[in-house]
Amino acid sequence: MIKDIVQKTLLFDFYGQLLTEKQRDIVELYYSDDLSLSEISEQIGISRQGVYDALKRAEGILEEYESRLGLVDKFLLQRSLLAKVSDMLDEIINTDDEVISDIKNRIRSIKSFVERLE
Amino acid sequence: MIKDIVQKTLLFDFYGQLLTEKQRDIVELYYSDDLSLSEISEQIGISRQGVYDALKRAEGILEEYESRLGLVDKFLLQRSLLAKVSDMLDEIINTDDEVISDIKNRIRSIKSFVERLE
Repeated sequence: MIKDIVQKTLLFDFYGQLLTEKQRDIVELYYSDDLSLSEISEQIGISRQGVYDALKRAEGILEEYESRLGLVDKFLLQRSLLAKVSDMLDEIINTDDEVISDIKNRIRSIKSFVERLE
Repeated sequence: MIKDIVQKTLLFDFYGQLLTEKQRDIVELYYSDDLSLSEISEQIGISRQGVYDALKRAEGILEEYESRLGLVDKFLLQRSLLAKVSDMLDEIINTDDEVISDIKNRIRSIKSFVERLE
């Protein structure tokens, strides 16, 4: 469930600008402001069913963009590679190892991760 | 001119999947296969003016997506940061410096670049 919300939030971050303003408002009220369907219905003056339909339609549009462009998937892969690079840099910063050749070998393996990001 | 073609190619790389198949074909024939408008006209059986109009329309759509999502701009920034990180890693690999604290300082500054990528 949490994972589902994270995924939907990422989809909205990447493709939200391709929704209409009204669709964006409804998605934000639901996912960012955590309002219920009924609360959104009252706030924007359409039926609860109308809010539900608009939300599902907006989600469908965002998923369609992702299926074509795959930016969220790419972003998640990049993020995990960057976290790995960052950890490996920290390991060198914090190491007691004083052997330069060892450190250079570590740098080489960091470089191979950086190349995967390019 | 070259810069313009690179920019258009990047726009196509990022958003080409959002064009219709016909629009994609025309853009590819023109920018990737380097055919003239007349050659494309012959190949796909529409007028030269029709090819020109379709090309301009497709370019307009790609630019509209970029103005909303800005992915090409973001990609170019990331690419220059990654090139910088890669160069800095190379400098350590190739250095004759044997002072660990100097090398760690270099690693710290690499880390600050990596953080800008996250």
